[in-house]
Amino acid sequence: MTPYPLDHVAIATNSIRKNASLFELLTRASCSPIEEIPSQQVRVAFIGRIELIEPTSPDSGVGRFLERRGPGIHHIAYRVPDIRVALRHFEAQGLKLIDREPRPGAGGHQVAFLHPSSTEGVLWELVESPGSQE
Amino acid sequence: MTPYPLDHVAIATNSIRKNASLFELLTRASCSPIEEIPSQQVRVAFIGRIELIEPTSPDSGVGRFLERRGPGIHHIAYRVPDIRVALRHFEAQGLKLIDREPRPGAGGHQVAFLHPSSTEGVLWELVESPGSQE
Repeated sequence: MTPYPLDHVAIATNSIRKNASLFELLTRASCSPIEEIPSQQVRVAFIGRIELIEPTSPDSGVGRFLERRGPGIHHIAYRVPDIRVALRHFEAQGLKLIDREPRPGAGGHQVAFLHPSSTEGVLWELVESPGSQE
Repeated sequence: MTPYPLDHVAIATNSIRKNASLFELLTRASCSPIEEIPSQQVRVAFIGRIELIEPTSPDSGVGRFLERRGPGIHHIAYRVPDIRVALRHFEAQGLKLIDREPRPGAGGHQVAFLHPSSTEGVLWELVESPGSQE
């Protein structure tokens, strides 16, 4: 079986605008345009494999994360060829799902999250990407 | 300028042995042999781009992290072609260094950490890798 590829590492921040240049410095990659994802109440931008996520509401998951812990690494995301198949497979293996069905994520991709309580404290995102079987 | 490549995402755990199969399931990659890194008081193993780190002492940085927060994402690491040059560059740009000089890390690589207080709450590792200029 081909390993799933790592898609991105997400960093929660209070301001993409103020911090984009820091991660451009650290990675030498360029910041993408900022995209709003209403279903998750966040704005996001990509700098190479770093996703900066900024809440649009303090009551969002990312807003509460920032309130509780401050800025920092929020989740990691892996690409899978078929997100529904992967969700059913992980559920059958005893993992706890946050999303039983995929929802729209950045870049028009379908995404779903696994619950950190069954993934060693890591908020784990699945991103469906047709290219991930290569 | 070529972007620096993401090398790995490190997850702090109380037991590599107990959790390796979880991350093999999540990534479909295979776990490497476990390696001990005395300078950081940890054992590590790689599962694709995931590094599992387990403290060999409760007083180590990773031991204190687990005590405070429980298991979860601990740091991310980027490859740089010359770690001393990168450290001086980041310092000149105002970033706070944990390691002013590189120290031995996993796989015989030279590594150094930047302080989360100047990197938006992210513990950021640099790994010198001759292949990172490609």
